[in-house]
Amino acid sequence: MIPWFTVDELLRRALQEDVNYLDLSCAFLFAPGQRSSAYLLAKAPGVLCGAEIFVRVFQLLDDSLRFTLKKHDGEAFAAGDILLELEGETALLLQGERTALNLLQHLCGVATQTAQIVALVRGTGAQIADTRKTLPGLRALQKYAVLCGGGKNHRFNLSDGVMLKDNHIDACGSIEAAVRAVRTKLGHMVRLEVETRSLDEVRQALAARADVIMLDNMPLEEMRQAVRFVRAKAENSATVLEASGDINAENVRQAAETGVDVISIGALTHSAKALNISMRLETGA
Amino acid sequence: MIPWFTVDELLRRALQEDVNYLDLSCAFLFAPGQRSSAYLLAKAPGVLCGAEIFVRVFQLLDDSLRFTLKKHDGEAFAAGDILLELEGETALLLQGERTALNLLQHLCGVATQTAQIVALVRGTGAQIADTRKTLPGLRALQKYAVLCGGGKNHRFNLSDGVMLKDNHIDACGSIEAAVRAVRTKLGHMVRLEVETRSLDEVRQALAARADVIMLDNMPLEEMRQAVRFVRAKAENSATVLEASGDINAENVRQAAETGVDVISIGALTHSAKALNISMRLETGA
Amino acid sequence: MIPWFTVDELLRRALQEDVNYLDLSCAFLFAPGQRSSAYLLAKAPGVLCGAEIFVRVFQLLDDSLRFTLKKHDGEAFAAGDILLELEGETALLLQGERTALNLLQHLCGVATQTAQIVALVRGTGAQIADTRKTLPGLRALQKYAVLCGGGKNHRFNLSDGVMLKDNHIDACGSIEAAVRAVRTKLGHMVRLEVETRSLDEVRQALAARADVIMLDNMPLEEMRQAVRFVRAKAENSATVLEASGDINAENVRQAAETGVDVISIGALTHSAKALNISMRLETGA
Amino acid sequence: MIPWFTVDELLRRALQEDVNYLDLSCAFLFAPGQRSSAYLLAKAPGVLCGAEIFVRVFQLLDDSLRFTLKKHDGEAFAAGDILLELEGETALLLQGERTALNLLQHLCGVATQTAQIVALVRGTGAQIADTRKTLPGLRALQKYAVLCGGGKNHRFNLSDGVMLKDNHIDACGSIEAAVRAVRTKLGHMVRLEVETRSLDEVRQALAARADVIMLDNMPLEEMRQAVRFVRAKAENSATVLEASGDINAENVRQAAETGVDVISIGALTHSAKALNISMRLETGA
Amino acid sequence: MIPWFTVDELLRRALQEDVNYLDLSCAFLFAPGQRSSAYLLAKAPGVLCGAEIFVRVFQLLDDSLRFTLKKHDGEAFAAGDILLELEGETALLLQGERTALNLLQHLCGVATQTAQIVALVRGTGAQIADTRKTLPGLRALQKYAVLCGGGKNHRFNLSDGVMLKDNHIDACGSIEAAVRAVRTKLGHMVRLEVETRSLDEVRQALAARADVIMLDNMPLEEMRQAVRFVRAKAENSATVLEASGDINAENVRQAAETGVDVISIGALTHSAKALNISMRLETGA
Amino acid sequence: MIPWFTVDELLRRALQEDVNYLDLSCAFLFAPGQRSSAYLLAKAPGVLCGAEIFVRVFQLLDDSLRFTLKKHDGEAFAAGDILLELEGETALLLQGERTALNLLQHLCGVATQTAQIVALVRGTGAQIADTRKTLPGLRALQKYAVLCGGGKNHRFNLSDGVMLKDNHIDACGSIEAAVRAVRTKLGHMVRLEVETRSLDEVRQALAARADVIMLDNMPLEEMRQAVRFVRAKAENSATVLEASGDINAENVRQAAETGVDVISIGALTHSAKALNISMRLETGA
Repeated sequence: MIPWFTVDELLRRALQEDVNYLDLSCAFLFAPGQRSSAYLLAKAPGVLCGAEIFVRVFQLLDDSLRFTLKKHDGEAFAAGDILLELEGETALLLQGERTALNLLQHLCGVATQTAQIVALVRGTGAQIADTRKTLPGLRALQKYAVLCGGGKNHRFNLSDGVMLKDNHIDACGSIEAAVRAVRTKLGHMVRLEVETRSLDEVRQALAARADVIMLDNMPLEEMRQAVRFVRAKAENSATVLEASGDINAENVRQAAETGVDVISIGALTHSAKALNISMRLETGA
Repeated sequence: MIPWFTVDELLRRALQEDVNYLDLSCAFLFAPGQRSSAYLLAKAPGVLCGAEIFVRVFQLLDDSLRFTLKKHDGEAFAAGDILLELEGETALLLQGERTALNLLQHLCGVATQTAQIVALVRGTGAQIADTRKTLPGLRALQKYAVLCGGGKNHRFNLSDGVMLKDNHIDACGSIEAAVRAVRTKLGHMVRLEVETRSLDEVRQALAARADVIMLDNMPLEEMRQAVRFVRAKAENSATVLEASGDINAENVRQAAETGVDVISIGALTHSAKALNISMRLETGA
Repeated sequence: MIPWFTVDELLRRALQEDVNYLDLSCAFLFAPGQRSSAYLLAKAPGVLCGAEIFVRVFQLLDDSLRFTLKKHDGEAFAAGDILLELEGETALLLQGERTALNLLQHLCGVATQTAQIVALVRGTGAQIADTRKTLPGLRALQKYAVLCGGGKNHRFNLSDGVMLKDNHIDACGSIEAAVRAVRTKLGHMVRLEVETRSLDEVRQALAARADVIMLDNMPLEEMRQAVRFVRAKAENSATVLEASGDINAENVRQAAETGVDVISIGALTHSAKALNISMRLETGA
Repeated sequence: MIPWFTVDELLRRALQEDVNYLDLSCAFLFAPGQRSSAYLLAKAPGVLCGAEIFVRVFQLLDDSLRFTLKKHDGEAFAAGDILLELEGETALLLQGERTALNLLQHLCGVATQTAQIVALVRGTGAQIADTRKTLPGLRALQKYAVLCGGGKNHRFNLSDGVMLKDNHIDACGSIEAAVRAVRTKLGHMVRLEVETRSLDEVRQALAARADVIMLDNMPLEEMRQAVRFVRAKAENSATVLEASGDINAENVRQAAETGVDVISIGALTHSAKALNISMRLETGA
Repeated sequence: MIPWFTVDELLRRALQEDVNYLDLSCAFLFAPGQRSSAYLLAKAPGVLCGAEIFVRVFQLLDDSLRFTLKKHDGEAFAAGDILLELEGETALLLQGERTALNLLQHLCGVATQTAQIVALVRGTGAQIADTRKTLPGLRALQKYAVLCGGGKNHRFNLSDGVMLKDNHIDACGSIEAAVRAVRTKLGHMVRLEVETRSLDEVRQALAARADVIMLDNMPLEEMRQAVRFVRAKAENSATVLEASGDINAENVRQAAETGVDVISIGALTHSAKALNISMRLETGA
Repeated sequence: MIPWFTVDELLRRALQEDVNYLDLSCAFLFAPGQRSSAYLLAKAPGVLCGAEIFVRVFQLLDDSLRFTLKKHDGEAFAAGDILLELEGETALLLQGERTALNLLQHLCGVATQTAQIVALVRGTGAQIADTRKTLPGLRALQKYAVLCGGGKNHRFNLSDGVMLKDNHIDACGSIEAAVRAVRTKLGHMVRLEVETRSLDEVRQALAARADVIMLDNMPLEEMRQAVRFVRAKAENSATVLEASGDINAENVRQAAETGVDVISIGALTHSAKALNISMRLETGA
């Protein structure tokens, strides 16, 4: 889904970083034309993200590459599953291996951890969303991994959504004044969120007609009150309530059960553990 | 220590990703010229990495930025410590905040976890090293973070060190043949490492005069035997022994006590947790 | 407001295009160090957009440049007004002149034409918005010019807003099915617009709870009916109605008086006429 | 004719600008592999420019694209003509549509307006040329469009032709001194033009042996005198006379009839109106 | 004279190539803030080219750099001359040294060899020009070095001058037909050169009114005849004659004395020897 | 062996430099679709380097290109040999010719001169190595050419090997202190070289356990003494001795016979002469 022109630029940079000038280990060992097949083996269960991107790494290196996807992005797999198969120049399979695995293991890590959290809130109305707490250069792919894991994407960047925090609000004196100032200039396709830290701020954000109200680091009980307060009037039915701040596998179910619409979790992308997947070469006859 | 021309390119890309065209939240709220001061507050103890890089984000946005470093890269800090102070245009402090924090929290995460592992092997002769299992686009900075945490850098890329794995060796029939084939072409400034999975392979790698022998996923007892075997002859004193494969905080001390020279750990960079650090704005008088 | 790292890349590309290797006319005539002052003179009335960007062109060429802004972006000016003053190396003032003027004249053209249209709908509730019909490479700046002229920005790109057209809808069989399919995956910060060509489609879009309904190329009378239909129920108060298609200075007031919220006009950016502004050099004493 | 490596860079930038990370409208609606055909329909008469560039946009997105050109660059077409046909992945046809159309409509606009002006001077000896008043980033393509419309290209940039204006001349004291200073250094493949504002300056430029003399903003009668003066001596037969300054469809024939060789018109590129062309999708069986 | 935005891109690439991530030799030895002065010492006589570019390398690395130019580009120097002085961070002076010297020594090599050839033809009317036989990525700088050495620049690229060779001419059947075909489309600022290999071709090129006629690899006597033939008619006074092909220090004077206007020599740029210049550091008190 | 993503970037830059916007000579002469065959003819004997890179230039321009390699990189050829054959669009063969030849002639020049030097030391134990004295932007390819000529690569950049020179050593007071300071931080895959100018410094470098000792500009007799001194003790058998400084075809055999392991020569890359190779077109039937 991510356009290739975006992915290719990242992959070339990553290959440049990993190969630099010359893969000394291969350049002096393999005759051009020597071919191998390889497969990608899951060593732990998870959710796939990045299969086509993994293949793309080798396509950038080797025009003659052939491949078969055994699983697709968004699918769950078990330890021992073969995820895809490759066939190409031996030297180029080895040359791309580390770059391709580094990215795949990371993206599967993000997708898998997202899926675990999403499973924990199943049946509540809450959605799990990412944040802008992504690793520099990897935002598009990390957010795509969140989608693969069944999560939702919060705003991509500062240009496509407004979120007013205390510093913004202080600049105008009040939530209402800040929202008004922004609305005067804002296009009709952009949603406006206000970060709140108390029921009083929730009340102000609601009065100011924020599209989304973030309950930032609120205790569960206060979150429940906020939900009740906002839902009390039918006219607020479109107001989205988002919980954020130190929510993790331990407490996400409770947060979801307060009735919030969205729970956003920075750790999905800023602290993901790589998933254990390995690539095996079978040097040809 | 990382040259600015390398860092700047990454930072511009990260800012592009996070800001895109226009920081809507600030563009419509702040008058140009409104200034604030800000400080960086550690909310957990750790080892600093990326203080100057953090500042650089804001320098790229704001020519008028002023800053004071309170801690330097490589220094330990406690929760509650102020790490640095900034003063600049309010809108630009907010515009750079997320990009700068995303990078700093990640690098401090890597440095801090490295320092924890390094502390665990103190007193043994073993060094802790990173691997090529880094996140695409972040290798230089992640490896710098490992240095800040007291670790050592393994080879940066495929052009500056040779590591012969089973696939390379199969191509030539034997460890000895593979090493010989590469040595014929290799420059005198490049070290050659051979990955081994048994004592027999260790013996072959030693006979082939590999500079470094990796003991890949060996049980502790086998590692001990390998060390004893290699150290038996004085002429092998320069041969470096490296342990690798699923070594973590639980078992790193035992691995170090086998007598290996280097323990390399991919998780230092592929699965680092972000450290909790926040930036606080004080909107000016 | 546009971040410099975005603007600088465009300006370097434009300078590269215009200067290429060597400004032959200046390189062979001016001694380094010869300085001049210059000013920017409006030869027609308009709305300013790009004053700081204009200056930036010369800053990229000349570290020693000094400047004074006489007008700011968004301000109206009369023919004969001096917009800004520069002082720097003569050869570099001449080298940057064409690039800087090409951009400024275009942006002032967009801002001025936007302001003229905005003036025509004053007093109605309608806002004037741009579209994605921008010139390749200039979208951010053209959309900024629309803001300077008092217009609003429609979505910036395909990632920050959804607009379902007939081709999208055909893929799912009905407006309702298409909206439902997208909503299932869409994040809570993104607005969804449906393009409609008849009252029946408006009804469907409303039933599907589209955030924005575009009335595409509708006759005025049909637009009026659509507005009446949508506004009939209080619960639809948040639904935005956008008119689009061949709306220009001749008919924009009538369109606005139908009661639509937004009128989007591609010609603001795809067919803007450059405004007549010239730069005058005063070779120094 | 424009090399692909130049065009591709612009197109990738334009796609990046228009798509950014993810085409939300398509990503969530279309299954990979769903295909459509599409055609490009002229809604107004004009001269074609950019057909292959239009196709290239989709080729960058979709390896499987097929296409047929019905008209070629430089050919005239009528309203209702089909200009080309495409067949490819539905989601990618929609993803590239806006970027491809934005460029094509602009280039056809430039080519068409150029052809209209060229038609007006048919039978006189005058050629119609563009200027450096192009839109940043689009010069190569805009100048190519002028060629498609039957116009000629003035110099591309400051490195491939010399034009001495009053500021250059002032630096040396006289036209003659300035021309001499430049000629001493100039290569033999570069033409030198002098801008003149009076018959006296024309005389000086001629004496200085300028290759081209520009008559800048001269009244028609003065232009006629300049032509007569220069043509009076056989040895001046190679001197090119160029008229410039506020020449448009109204007065271009009169300017041409003064006998000048070239008439250069900035508005061809700085104020072109987009031509109305649309792309129609036929979602496949 | 070369714009910084062009030079900087090359220098950053060169620094990237030479430094890559981390200057290991300096990173582990020098404390930040340790400063040195340095000077650039000519170890052979020559003509300077690249002094400011040399300094720029260090400015890209070190904001605090100070420098004094002792000689300027285009000036001759003797062995033992100090060309410039620097003062800055010791680690950054060492980090930039090799990149800066590699470029300077090459450019001084080109300028010096050009000056030697130019001196050999002094007093004849012939100019010495470069060709498009430059090293990839270095054309602008190499051509600038030719200027510094007193030579002239032939066309920069395929877009700013036409040169018709046998392959072009074969496509149209005759020199006359080829010249006519091109002139129909060519702008008035572009010169057209025809490559000839015999007196008969010279005659045809002259008849076709080529601006420049190249005498390609002609024996001296044939060159003399060509000159005589062309100069025979007054109306040909503007036709430029260029000799090319295996002309070097041995035979350039004879070639010049045939009366040709220009002698172009590929070896000026494709086979230049680096000039011996070294940088000396004086680690500060 | 050099990855395409590295080569392509250089080639696109070189094509941009040589073609810029439009190959005027071809654009106006050749109909699209006109095809030719061409071959590459050696006009002097040499060693081939860059055959596939030469072909790649045309592949970047022409999707329909066909080619046959007659010789491969590293092979010797005689004057008159045909090195490869091409078949493609005539206009694109001409458009890429200069760029492709400029690079090939340079790389063959480097490879050929390297092979000549390597031949001179045959039978001694000495290897011929390059240095970091390469041309900006061409290091990877120049070093690859040295390999093709039978030479070895010294370190690629400042990140993959340490070389301590007098300035580094002065910073720490002694060779021993400097080596110790670096070793404390250095990874186990990086070799450390010390530059020495006297037997006493050789002794110190040996005591400090440098991996490589460079004998910088030493007279032959002193080099012999250094070799004898170092080889005196069995434990130094792994210490590499490198001679450097003004070694050329005249004196390289004598240097090799002193018993040093490596002789590094900057002129291999900084002053290479282009080899005479030409491309011949055969315009098709």
